[in-house]
Amino acid sequence: MAGGIGSRFWPVSTTQFPKQFHDMLGTGQTLLQKTFSRLNKIVPEQNMQILTNERYLDICLSQVPEITESQVVLEPAMRNTAPCILLAALKIHKENPNGVMIVAPSDHWIEDEGAFQNDLEACFNACTEQDILVTLGIHPTFPNTGYGYIESDKQDDALLKKVLQFREKPNYATAKQFIAEGNFFWNAGIFIWSVNSIIKAFKEMMPAMYHLFSEGITSLNTQKEKAFIDISYPNAENISIDFAIMEKAENVLVKKATFDWNDLGTWGALHDKITDNSTENAVVRAIPHLRDAKGNMVYTSSEKLVVVDGLDDYIIVDKENVLLIFPKKKEQDIKQLLGEVKETFGEDYT
Amino acid sequence: MAGGIGSRFWPVSTTQFPKQFHDMLGTGQTLLQKTFSRLNKIVPEQNMQILTNERYLDICLSQVPEITESQVVLEPAMRNTAPCILLAALKIHKENPNGVMIVAPSDHWIEDEGAFQNDLEACFNACTEQDILVTLGIHPTFPNTGYGYIESDKQDDALLKKVLQFREKPNYATAKQFIAEGNFFWNAGIFIWSVNSIIKAFKEMMPAMYHLFSEGITSLNTQKEKAFIDISYPNAENISIDFAIMEKAENVLVKKATFDWNDLGTWGALHDKITDNSTENAVVRAIPHLRDAKGNMVYTSSEKLVVVDGLDDYIIVDKENVLLIFPKKKEQDIKQLLGEVKETFGEDYT
Repeated sequence: MAGGIGSRFWPVSTTQFPKQFHDMLGTGQTLLQKTFSRLNKIVPEQNMQILTNERYLDICLSQVPEITESQVVLEPAMRNTAPCILLAALKIHKENPNGVMIVAPSDHWIEDEGAFQNDLEACFNACTEQDILVTLGIHPTFPNTGYGYIESDKQDDALLKKVLQFREKPNYATAKQFIAEGNFFWNAGIFIWSVNSIIKAFKEMMPAMYHLFSEGITSLNTQKEKAFIDISYPNAENISIDFAIMEKAENVLVKKATFDWNDLGTWGALHDKITDNSTENAVVRAIPHLRDAKGNMVYTSSEKLVVVDGLDDYIIVDKENVLLIFPKKKEQDIKQLLGEVKETFGEDYT
Repeated sequence: MAGGIGSRFWPVSTTQFPKQFHDMLGTGQTLLQKTFSRLNKIVPEQNMQILTNERYLDICLSQVPEITESQVVLEPAMRNTAPCILLAALKIHKENPNGVMIVAPSDHWIEDEGAFQNDLEACFNACTEQDILVTLGIHPTFPNTGYGYIESDKQDDALLKKVLQFREKPNYATAKQFIAEGNFFWNAGIFIWSVNSIIKAFKEMMPAMYHLFSEGITSLNTQKEKAFIDISYPNAENISIDFAIMEKAENVLVKKATFDWNDLGTWGALHDKITDNSTENAVVRAIPHLRDAKGNMVYTSSEKLVVVDGLDDYIIVDKENVLLIFPKKKEQDIKQLLGEVKETFGEDYT
């Protein structure tokens, strides 16, 4: 899934060129490229689909030359995750009714790719044999109030544990309690299931959406697919897979992830990914000369010298046509700031 | 005079491209161009000389196409103001023994060019008739501790008043006292005199320098001039015209300037030039979106959007390969910072 616009990462992430297409960590690869190569260790490239907005087709093809245009499913409108996941499942099912699939965001960070691969194989095996919907649960290392949580059945001592419920972003006290309980995980939005299981779940729980897309089965994976999607997709309900299926289904299991993960959801999350120490400065691409400066997130789109004196806990982002100097503690306001900038200065910067 | 390197304006001002060659105020003209056109209202372009370091010849010729290469006097070494002024005076004298001249820095700001022209004409007239060394004194509007002061004779009620003494940069209490006295002026480093008077003064007070350059009289204004300067100039004493002549001479008069002036000596001075209100933000070239931000000096080398939240009294400078975020109150440390940067990262940024 590569259709988001990553508005909390403005000014780097823009509607024209969102976060997943940027080398946010300065590793030499964009997040999409990182995600592709991580998945490609277990999924052959010809079995990969990129689900994205139609305006990003060219970026996807240039960043992932391993795939062909027919593997990029273009959403003519933004409808959250449920519609594109059902569409992808139907496409795979038409090609292989016994297929299993993984659904993954393209803009997250996973540290240990070997561990990821092992976890994934365990889930694929389970989904091949059982009618289950599996989610990867991240071991919560601190009471993060920015993530959703998954509550697993304490009694269940299997590798894949029964999920009791999904819990929305908690307040701090609740998050602390979750951590103390020991059977809560962060919801990373990475799902594994057989196409049969997920299609069955949609048929039961999202019948309108199921019928909307089932009518086009004959068109899927053919030259008529695009015309069908363009007409049907805008009529799909705008809903996440979590709300549509996961929170209602009875057959959801969670596999505890054995890898470190970061959703890179905000500049602060990127800071935390780069350094464990909140008082250190995290620097991407810039050449830093920092004095009396702590806890800053410094990101430049080119290798430029950044001299800072007497500044703590700021987000400092520099790109060709925008400079942002913003308190880290207000990072959640960047989405709103983006709206102000769009209103005041037009689309050039957003 | 356009030979300085303006190190307090780093990172905009660099050895390769100093302050006077930048459009520091975003007016569409560089400070050198502004200075040239201001002087050109009273001095014909063929009578103009630019005294600068040899590395800036091409910049001078491209920024001031009105002059020819022979009008750019190239200093092979940095020797402060006295040597280049004597050299210029000798060159003019050889062409016109009765000439009067003005010496002016190329990196200051003068608001009212008409008033400047009137003051200058009065000084030229006086210098044509009398053996005097005239300096323009700026009416001090506040007890600035960063400028030198000129003390004039309280008893003298002529337009050009006798100077009692030059006073180095005072402390705050002394500066306040100067202002209260009423007969003190800021020293703007703008001088007017006949070539005869200044040459006579050098002959008396700086005999070594006078003889050093007098030996080359036959070479001046000829093709041999450059060779002579290249050999003799490095042997000249490294001394300012203030120390060498003005503080010792008995025939110094001051003309109170009727124009507003700013030496643009620091980022803070540039801030003060742009806005009288110290709590306002001063912005050059940038497109600002500033919230909860006061008293900042924002300068960008391109028209880029600058978003700042929660920052007061900072210097924010952005150019292609350097970003500086520095407290305004530490602006005097920028010269030292420049040294650190040069030592750590080499010449690329300085």
